[in-house]
Amino acid sequence: MDDASALSPDPIRPGIGTSGTARNWPLNSWWVAAHGSEVSEKPIMRWIMELPIALYRTESQEAVALHNRCPHRWAPLHMGEVAGDRLICPYHGMEFEPSGQCMKVPTQDNTPSAIRIRAFPVEERYGFIWIWMGEASLADPDLIPADLAYLEDPAWYNVWGYKAVNANFMQIKENVLDLTHFSFLHKNSLGVTDWNRPPKVESANGRVTYSQFFENSPLAAIYAAAANKTPGKIVNRETWGTQLSPGAHHSAVNIYDPDPEPNGLSECFARVVHLTTPVSVGKTHYYWVMARDHGGPYDVEQTRAFIGKVFAEDVTMLEATQDMARRAADQDEALEFSVSADRAGVTGRRLVAAMTDAEKMQQE
Amino acid sequence: MDDASALSPDPIRPGIGTSGTARNWPLNSWWVAAHGSEVSEKPIMRWIMELPIALYRTESQEAVALHNRCPHRWAPLHMGEVAGDRLICPYHGMEFEPSGQCMKVPTQDNTPSAIRIRAFPVEERYGFIWIWMGEASLADPDLIPADLAYLEDPAWYNVWGYKAVNANFMQIKENVLDLTHFSFLHKNSLGVTDWNRPPKVESANGRVTYSQFFENSPLAAIYAAAANKTPGKIVNRETWGTQLSPGAHHSAVNIYDPDPEPNGLSECFARVVHLTTPVSVGKTHYYWVMARDHGGPYDVEQTRAFIGKVFAEDVTMLEATQDMARRAADQDEALEFSVSADRAGVTGRRLVAAMTDAEKMQQE
Amino acid sequence: MDDASALSPDPIRPGIGTSGTARNWPLNSWWVAAHGSEVSEKPIMRWIMELPIALYRTESQEAVALHNRCPHRWAPLHMGEVAGDRLICPYHGMEFEPSGQCMKVPTQDNTPSAIRIRAFPVEERYGFIWIWMGEASLADPDLIPADLAYLEDPAWYNVWGYKAVNANFMQIKENVLDLTHFSFLHKNSLGVTDWNRPPKVESANGRVTYSQFFENSPLAAIYAAAANKTPGKIVNRETWGTQLSPGAHHSAVNIYDPDPEPNGLSECFARVVHLTTPVSVGKTHYYWVMARDHGGPYDVEQTRAFIGKVFAEDVTMLEATQDMARRAADQDEALEFSVSADRAGVTGRRLVAAMTDAEKMQQE
Repeated sequence: MDDASALSPDPIRPGIGTSGTARNWPLNSWWVAAHGSEVSEKPIMRWIMELPIALYRTESQEAVALHNRCPHRWAPLHMGEVAGDRLICPYHGMEFEPSGQCMKVPTQDNTPSAIRIRAFPVEERYGFIWIWMGEASLADPDLIPADLAYLEDPAWYNVWGYKAVNANFMQIKENVLDLTHFSFLHKNSLGVTDWNRPPKVESANGRVTYSQFFENSPLAAIYAAAANKTPGKIVNRETWGTQLSPGAHHSAVNIYDPDPEPNGLSECFARVVHLTTPVSVGKTHYYWVMARDHGGPYDVEQTRAFIGKVFAEDVTMLEATQDMARRAADQDEALEFSVSADRAGVTGRRLVAAMTDAEKMQQE
Repeated sequence: MDDASALSPDPIRPGIGTSGTARNWPLNSWWVAAHGSEVSEKPIMRWIMELPIALYRTESQEAVALHNRCPHRWAPLHMGEVAGDRLICPYHGMEFEPSGQCMKVPTQDNTPSAIRIRAFPVEERYGFIWIWMGEASLADPDLIPADLAYLEDPAWYNVWGYKAVNANFMQIKENVLDLTHFSFLHKNSLGVTDWNRPPKVESANGRVTYSQFFENSPLAAIYAAAANKTPGKIVNRETWGTQLSPGAHHSAVNIYDPDPEPNGLSECFARVVHLTTPVSVGKTHYYWVMARDHGGPYDVEQTRAFIGKVFAEDVTMLEATQDMARRAADQDEALEFSVSADRAGVTGRRLVAAMTDAEKMQQE
Repeated sequence: MDDASALSPDPIRPGIGTSGTARNWPLNSWWVAAHGSEVSEKPIMRWIMELPIALYRTESQEAVALHNRCPHRWAPLHMGEVAGDRLICPYHGMEFEPSGQCMKVPTQDNTPSAIRIRAFPVEERYGFIWIWMGEASLADPDLIPADLAYLEDPAWYNVWGYKAVNANFMQIKENVLDLTHFSFLHKNSLGVTDWNRPPKVESANGRVTYSQFFENSPLAAIYAAAANKTPGKIVNRETWGTQLSPGAHHSAVNIYDPDPEPNGLSECFARVVHLTTPVSVGKTHYYWVMARDHGGPYDVEQTRAFIGKVFAEDVTMLEATQDMARRAADQDEALEFSVSADRAGVTGRRLVAAMTDAEKMQQE
């Protein structure tokens, strides 16, 4: 017998975000294209904002991002090879420089200068390759949030991961701007159940930050392991999170123990970084990093497994949420009802929407 | 080597019914949402008429149907838990009553009365949960066809099943309104090959009924097993079928043996119920029941297997038929040519179309 | 961890050819519907130019092509049986002649003459079933390119194959009109690396032909095997290829050895035939034949495996190329930049476009 709960209408919209089917992201911002360890002399391809992007490194290890479509017959350039600094088309051998300029057409002596592809500004920082999909002249590397410098600080441990998500990038950002879902969505995995009041929210300079202090709070197992303490011990917990840019967010959990064990830590700091890059309106590349300042031995595999489990709960929820919208006949009548705890999320959404709208208006 | 017969164009239309891509079903009617045994305190989700529906039971075992999309951030409510009579959102813990009213927002003291979701009238009858997707004030339980009372009659055996079908619900209904396809589509499975003339057709009160009497007809194996007689024995067979409503149809096979064996039956009655509920224009939930009045032992598994086999022939044909339309460039020029045997089917289609059209007109 | 390179936007267009989403093929031409060995008294179905086509043979072994959709209730006729010369609908048993005329409705005595389906002209020649999808009165069998007669010549060996391709048929044709891709796409499989200058191109009578002579060229392993010679031996190689019609292309490799071994061949001729039939704008049936005039033993399986490997490189490239276009947001801005080596391909494309456009204009 078939499963009646498995039969659903075909999706009507290709994806849904907070602003319908149109893009709800600005192009003029830095977005994570890949982790640095993923890019080498062997080119790879990534879809970013509905464009195919070829990524590779030159001989001097500089990362390069080119539009992954040969202007001759549209072959995906990443299937070709890199020779020196050039990317060679796998189909007819045309050679492209990091600038996107074609330097050689093997079957003829002259190379028309009009044969060129778009090159995208890239910067490698904090372990990641950041890409600028908009107007190249605006691509100021200083716009990459310097707040993430601890990712390159040897005094911090970190572990990164990636998840392909069938949901709009803004859904992921709003999810991490309202952690009151801990008590429900993650009640069996995180074990943090005291996040039952909205945090303080502040917004300035295109950023939004929530913060909350939990005094005399029992230490959840997840934080106890990081701090090398006994789960359930009464400590103070400081939390905050900041939407740094449309593509970057990080959050903090700082444990303060007024009564540390002999040789125990009185402070323990952790950060979670969420780097979300749109593939299309309904799909997102989701890179994350879990970082900790110091303390006992840091079990990379265990951390990755644990974060993987918790984030899978988020992703399952976000994908189901989008599915409720994509397939439903009444999707256009579906208004969201926001409550107090949504202040940070709604502010974050408006900040990104304002950037996006301003950019779109300028293009018209 | 690939299989050239397997390469087909992408479907152009999401589904095709008898009236194009628009819905061809009335909302103001009772439709089967689930079998009663499928609904419990653990909520489930069903797509019905392109809306996601959460189904669960209250403490007093009342079935409840709610729009399965939290008005806060669109989470699928069926992924949450039931506490008492309330359905709790799995994402941020909002609590909803069977009426659809939100009674609690965990992160704040007040609960805005505007937070509510649509509740759909449901009735549990004849083993099934019936749902009313239209105007709630019109949901009169007496409109559920009382003809199906034998499904709760202890003097009758019955077995039910379910099939997910990639075809419009009206295709299934027309299929069971013209059983002259027995001789071709089911010639190797049913073994009923004498249905070669159109039946008598009568229509009244929004229903259509066909009927046909087969005198001195050899008993097909399927009916022989039910009647505990020898296959091929010459008996009389009375058949009829009625489209009871847009979502319900039942048919009868009554065997009369003028010369019963010692201790044999002189009469044996069977009914097949077809309960078809649109998921979307091109997909249908298909619940069926096979019932028999009395007689020898009733082998549930054997009956389910046999019906399953025969119905799979129908479904394969209906899905292929829809596929011929969905993918073809000339689908708009494809007119159907009806013959005498289609009278019941065409009448049934017109009855449903009239209800649907009247309803749509009223909404404008 | 998921694979970030695997996440792509949903395709926006159903397929892309050289003229957008509209058909870029003429109907008034012969196209290969199947290899003769695939068609028998047991009907099969093929999608050709977005129409479902039933193919079967009559008692006298004549191939028949009918629109595979019963005009009664749209059942796929190929699921039925052939009795004598008639195709019988699997659903309600209507019987159709090779002309498409319905001859019997089982449930009634009279058969309305209006019940008929479209029959398509077919011709069996050179091992294949050719179909004419346009105006039947124009279907002159002499329009099937007689150049392919060697496929029925007992002095030639041949082996055929089939590949389902997710790319426009014209992409495949242009691929075989510019073999300068040998040096890049097939550099590891074919081993022919000296095709580095554009060939001579001539066009007349709706055909285009390229030709190129390689003097004192080292014999590639693929040709050495066919000619039973030592790989790398210095010989002369004559190559040419002709687009015979929108659906047919063949190419030649003729080896001339001025210094043959004792008992060795001084000449060896090979032909590759490419028969491409649109399923839809983005999908193509691709039949091929590899033929050789004479020489040492002809290993059919080895030839099929080798050609299969080389063609798989082409198909992978063509499908990826189409994918770059289907999914990209900037597909409409994607102009192709042609170079000298594209002359034959561009001419071939224009010839087909001219036929198609003339035909469309006539229909308006």
